[in-house]
Amino acid sequence: MAFVYKGEPRRGALWAGHFARRMPHVPFRIWPDTGDAAAVRFLCAWEPPAQIAETFPQLEVLFSVGAGVDQFDFSALPADLAIVRMVEPGLTACMCEYVSWAVLSLHREMPAYLRQQRRSVWQEHPVRPAGTRRVGVMGMGALGRAALAQLRLLGFDCAGWSRSMHNVPGVRCFAGDAQLDEFLAATDILVCLLPLTPQTRGILSRRVFDALPEGAALVNAARGGHVVEDDLLSALERGRLSAAILDVCEPEPLPQGHAFWDHPRIWLTPHVAASTQAETAIESLLDNLRRHEAGLPLEGAVDRARGY
Amino acid sequence: MAFVYKGEPRRGALWAGHFARRMPHVPFRIWPDTGDAAAVRFLCAWEPPAQIAETFPQLEVLFSVGAGVDQFDFSALPADLAIVRMVEPGLTACMCEYVSWAVLSLHREMPAYLRQQRRSVWQEHPVRPAGTRRVGVMGMGALGRAALAQLRLLGFDCAGWSRSMHNVPGVRCFAGDAQLDEFLAATDILVCLLPLTPQTRGILSRRVFDALPEGAALVNAARGGHVVEDDLLSALERGRLSAAILDVCEPEPLPQGHAFWDHPRIWLTPHVAASTQAETAIESLLDNLRRHEAGLPLEGAVDRARGY
Repeated sequence: MAFVYKGEPRRGALWAGHFARRMPHVPFRIWPDTGDAAAVRFLCAWEPPAQIAETFPQLEVLFSVGAGVDQFDFSALPADLAIVRMVEPGLTACMCEYVSWAVLSLHREMPAYLRQQRRSVWQEHPVRPAGTRRVGVMGMGALGRAALAQLRLLGFDCAGWSRSMHNVPGVRCFAGDAQLDEFLAATDILVCLLPLTPQTRGILSRRVFDALPEGAALVNAARGGHVVEDDLLSALERGRLSAAILDVCEPEPLPQGHAFWDHPRIWLTPHVAASTQAETAIESLLDNLRRHEAGLPLEGAVDRARGY
Repeated sequence: MAFVYKGEPRRGALWAGHFARRMPHVPFRIWPDTGDAAAVRFLCAWEPPAQIAETFPQLEVLFSVGAGVDQFDFSALPADLAIVRMVEPGLTACMCEYVSWAVLSLHREMPAYLRQQRRSVWQEHPVRPAGTRRVGVMGMGALGRAALAQLRLLGFDCAGWSRSMHNVPGVRCFAGDAQLDEFLAATDILVCLLPLTPQTRGILSRRVFDALPEGAALVNAARGGHVVEDDLLSALERGRLSAAILDVCEPEPLPQGHAFWDHPRIWLTPHVAASTQAETAIESLLDNLRRHEAGLPLEGAVDRARGY
């Protein structure tokens, strides 16, 4: 029985030490030095090797290095292979920071102030109490719920929308296509934290933007594939959206010359909202291996039909 | 007995309604329509009229419209006139939002990312857990303590420094000149929320910047007079400071052509961090008048010797 890690080498070195001390019965190998391939039962990777079934015939669990699994081609993975998203507190904390920063930026008109600075303009804009600023989070998984909790601590009027109905204290909850328009009509700042699936690809489109109040703002910290780029540009041009803060695009890096780079109403960060933090993620990973050994369900187990 | 308001007319109109309904025995006048000047016992102003003693011979209390009283020339005010700062929850909430936004911006390297965006550069920088980011707040009055509470909720390692020693749970507290260096040496992000007094004017100087760790960052949401501008520019140039977010300068508006406007490591906002919120401030003002009628000490009463 062995565990193979295929990813950033520095993280691999740290994790190797943890495995040696705390789970010595599971040999930890760093790709491509996998040892006996037939002994490999667990793989943690951002991108698994092609021919995964031939490479690791006894593989039981594929752990994603990140919070998403949209980089996996499910059809290329053996049907009985368990797939697990990364759910770990360091990544969640990073995402809460980013969302708090982005929502505060939009709430307090910071894109407008920094545009003004470039033109040497000193001009105040009205302040609204956070309690009257309606922030709507799309996606109420581990990240969405944690972000909503943080936004509530900052005093915002919070709502959430997801595929299935959630019940979160202090948050107006909406679910499914049937309640999407009602959710959007009462959202001043829309935050996308959805998983990318065939159902959510392109969801941030004209249909969604036009259902928001005039002058609403967007934060996308999920995946570039959620955005229909031309619809976003048009919504910004028409004033339907006042500003967008984007951490993701498709492809990444954003190509040179792309309209997002120097758009005056877009703030762009290079996919840094939340990344797996090696020190905290190792605890979640070891916990999950212990759960697997004990025959318990895995945290972050992916439902392939649902896509996440 | 009458109350005179000298300030923004819209706020005056709102407050007039509150006074009429809730404190009808105190006539509320809006400058310059003061009625019988000899009946005026209370004045709320950003800038009081010149010759205040001659204008209002029976004046008992001067309320500042804002959190600071540095705009008052104490020597021009009668010695027995009570002076009161504005302490009100709306203004405090605004300041907490601004400080949270500014500290998150610096913590997550947002000035660097937005500089990169202008050059079409897609490059990640390492993320540090908030718990290892040391945020030091100078000034532990109502605003400083509230900001520290919010920063703790965001997970930062928090310290505070003030003239006299405070005891705030979860915050490393320092006081006076004797402990300033120790406070600064352990501060990655320095937030100035001090009152502006002869003792604090120019405190953000080379002496303070050089006591911070290399590459520290600055937030000034207090007064422009706290900053020695040439020392700040030099600290940014030498890399002693990595970035500064300034909400205030001296004079305001910042003059055209000033080096702060297009400095790549300075973010500038036009004195919008926190302003008195008419709807919440009226409650604090009416409370204070009731305290005065009952012979109780006023909230926010200024000690002239201390300067705030």
